[in-house]
Amino acid sequence: MNYSMIRYILASVLGFEGIFLLLPSAVALIYREQKGFLYFAVALASLAVGLIGRIKKPKSKVFYSREGFASVSLSWLLLSFVGALPMFLTGEFPSYADALFETISGFTTTGASILSSVEELSRCTAFWRLFTHWIGGMGVLVFIMAVLPLSGSSNMHLMRAESPGPSVGKLVPKIKRTAMILYGIYVVITAMEIIALLIARMPLFEAVTLSFSTVGTGGFGLVNDSIASYSIAVQVIIIVFMLLCAVNFNVYYLLLIKKVKEGLLYEEMRYFLLIVFGSALLIMFNIKDGFSSLFEAFHTALFQVASVITTTGFATADFNLWPEFSKTILVLLMFVGACAGSTGGGFKVSRLMILIRSVKNEIVSIVHPRSVRKVHMNGRQVSDGIVKAALCYLAAYVMVVLVSLLLLSLNGFDMTTNFTAVMATLNNIGPGLNVVGPTGNFGAFSLLSKIVLMFDMLVGRLELFPMLVLFAPGMWNFPTYRPEKKRIPSE
Amino acid sequence: MNYSMIRYILASVLGFEGIFLLLPSAVALIYREQKGFLYFAVALASLAVGLIGRIKKPKSKVFYSREGFASVSLSWLLLSFVGALPMFLTGEFPSYADALFETISGFTTTGASILSSVEELSRCTAFWRLFTHWIGGMGVLVFIMAVLPLSGSSNMHLMRAESPGPSVGKLVPKIKRTAMILYGIYVVITAMEIIALLIARMPLFEAVTLSFSTVGTGGFGLVNDSIASYSIAVQVIIIVFMLLCAVNFNVYYLLLIKKVKEGLLYEEMRYFLLIVFGSALLIMFNIKDGFSSLFEAFHTALFQVASVITTTGFATADFNLWPEFSKTILVLLMFVGACAGSTGGGFKVSRLMILIRSVKNEIVSIVHPRSVRKVHMNGRQVSDGIVKAALCYLAAYVMVVLVSLLLLSLNGFDMTTNFTAVMATLNNIGPGLNVVGPTGNFGAFSLLSKIVLMFDMLVGRLELFPMLVLFAPGMWNFPTYRPEKKRIPSE
Repeated sequence: MNYSMIRYILASVLGFEGIFLLLPSAVALIYREQKGFLYFAVALASLAVGLIGRIKKPKSKVFYSREGFASVSLSWLLLSFVGALPMFLTGEFPSYADALFETISGFTTTGASILSSVEELSRCTAFWRLFTHWIGGMGVLVFIMAVLPLSGSSNMHLMRAESPGPSVGKLVPKIKRTAMILYGIYVVITAMEIIALLIARMPLFEAVTLSFSTVGTGGFGLVNDSIASYSIAVQVIIIVFMLLCAVNFNVYYLLLIKKVKEGLLYEEMRYFLLIVFGSALLIMFNIKDGFSSLFEAFHTALFQVASVITTTGFATADFNLWPEFSKTILVLLMFVGACAGSTGGGFKVSRLMILIRSVKNEIVSIVHPRSVRKVHMNGRQVSDGIVKAALCYLAAYVMVVLVSLLLLSLNGFDMTTNFTAVMATLNNIGPGLNVVGPTGNFGAFSLLSKIVLMFDMLVGRLELFPMLVLFAPGMWNFPTYRPEKKRIPSE
Repeated sequence: MNYSMIRYILASVLGFEGIFLLLPSAVALIYREQKGFLYFAVALASLAVGLIGRIKKPKSKVFYSREGFASVSLSWLLLSFVGALPMFLTGEFPSYADALFETISGFTTTGASILSSVEELSRCTAFWRLFTHWIGGMGVLVFIMAVLPLSGSSNMHLMRAESPGPSVGKLVPKIKRTAMILYGIYVVITAMEIIALLIARMPLFEAVTLSFSTVGTGGFGLVNDSIASYSIAVQVIIIVFMLLCAVNFNVYYLLLIKKVKEGLLYEEMRYFLLIVFGSALLIMFNIKDGFSSLFEAFHTALFQVASVITTTGFATADFNLWPEFSKTILVLLMFVGACAGSTGGGFKVSRLMILIRSVKNEIVSIVHPRSVRKVHMNGRQVSDGIVKAALCYLAAYVMVVLVSLLLLSLNGFDMTTNFTAVMATLNNIGPGLNVVGPTGNFGAFSLLSKIVLMFDMLVGRLELFPMLVLFAPGMWNFPTYRPEKKRIPSE
């Protein structure tokens, strides 16, 4: 393991977190909040430690996938532990663990809160809380890659470990340039939403922070009823931007380089939109009796569907009170999640497509045993390695769900609460059902449960393996490859 | 598709069902029940149609896996539709659909009932109900293979489609002999339980029928409170035989041919027993406050654990009232299921082991990218095909669960009821939680839900693919292999 390189990357992350923390300090300055000094102090300390850690250049440039995975998971842990510090120091959270839960929920763009009221928060804390969504949305290491010079192989492995989806979304041969393009698109979409919200007469502070939360598909809000009290215009803007950010960013790149047809025919996006509008229509018919018009029912259904499938987690209605059929659709959408290569979480539409096509091939191979069928996406063959990785991903995913469910059951809450709490955190959505429904929060869970859910949020955001690999045998040894033990080969 | 061969096999199945139906007729004769004539009439009709269908020998011996899968799934459908007839004609079930639900639940060894009281049933119906478990436990086509001469290739494909587990459990090179050995062990175990129950002073009728239900890991009983009112001795006997029948029958064969060490070290069995006793201990500590002694708590916990993991579905306690932690353990055990090559259902311990080892390998391959690791079981390498099939099985399994859950949610029951109803039927267990808990039943579901659950029971018993393949494109065409469409190969 190349420890000096990991130290160098972690120091860079800490340095940038220091810079990021200057923003809430500035917000505090504008609103004349004394709590801003705490943010400023942590910002300076992070910057200082980060700069000191970067003085000594890494001894070796050796960088394999395990260095990539370790750097990414440790970076996210560091980011969260430091990011929680000022939130805790302001005294606005009952304990450091709760502040940490909130911060992890922020960076992982989950949006699950332990607070029962968010309206009393100071402006700087409210800003930082929603800004973490924006930092986490596109990924902090992708950001560092875009702005810092790192060696080529490390870029590739970091990208692979941090980016969501079954395969890496390299837009251009150079990873650094890919990272820059991704952040460019991200910034433009954010700016577009801020402008749209300003036009809808939203005050600047709210427009900026809510845009961070939407574009990062996070879900933290500024008021207790999430988005319900905003105007219809604002709600429509948020629906549009939630959906925009849950689409594979490759599509925008294709549009940008004028490959309009390829962009619009992008298979994952088409299935994603099909699921969104299909689910919204089904829910509309299921809930229409409670609304004065079909349009209102559709609008409400679409907002909740978009919020859940994009893994944002905003709400304009308490879907806890909806009929079982609508609630079940939402739980299934929690599992589906957004497109790969977007800021959304979940299992990812493309990964689900690979699974469905694999199962279909498995069935067809019974009917036609001699034909070898491969999985295709966008008209191209998906390699066996990616197919197998997607299948293993499901297996690991199911195991994480089952173990988390078991540990959560020690709280004594009902099974629906526990199951949806796991789904809402592992898929980085936010609210679940019953106790953790849109009007509830995660504050009532025990410390053990909170630790499990924090783990689930990180594991979900980083797509399982970077976190799981931390516990792998031989992970922390020096790179000596153990030969496979000899065994009797057979069927 | 070799239709004449399938016709011939279905006719054999019908003929044997006619013979099986003579038994409840005989029971009716002993107890002087007029309803026995209905069983006798259906028995004669089945026998007659079966014999007529067998007059014309199949034109061709061509028999591929799709013929095997089609024969097996159609056989099970035929078996259920005919087996439900006398149950419906006796007027003891509200509708034919309900009688069919009960029969499918019987043959698939699920044990989920739509009846609120089973104590009023006539002796012949009670006998037939529990006898279906015994027929389904080891499989009706395995039975036919053991007693009828079929061509070698068809035997292999039928065995593959009907036997549970990730790979076929051929004990000896000849499938016909394997089938005979399996049924031999099955009959001996059944006889042993009957004798044990007789020694525990149980009347003959109860001893025989309850042995059918236990050995087939079914779960139907003769009284409303399942096994709770029987003596401790009977409960212990049932625990032992549930566990015995959920172990891979390979173990018994190994013991039989004096490979004692190999038999006792059989990996799947060791993990299975570890899970059983580990879960029972955890539940014991969780529920001990409600019991007068730790032994009583352990005994109760072990019975319920054994009942669920072996997918039998008996109960001696209403685990619906247990703490959430214990209930969650039971739900996880529903998923785990029994060993492959046993009469039990569920996902199967060995398949789960393959998944866990695949995920472990996937993680280790990040740390050591150059080492190629294979999954091993019992010290032997598992082929890539079996590993991929197990992974695809999980994917198909999850899809069936999600779609079933969505369709069931139309009933308006709570999510725990719906989820455990799907788990209890798909894994062939019987009782779930809440509405379908040990003291509840499946009678309140709508017809659509009952159809979904019947499908789940069959799909679960036949391990997904035989039923799913019925809907595959090109399944019912004549065997012309379509060449793979040409596409751009790429990653």
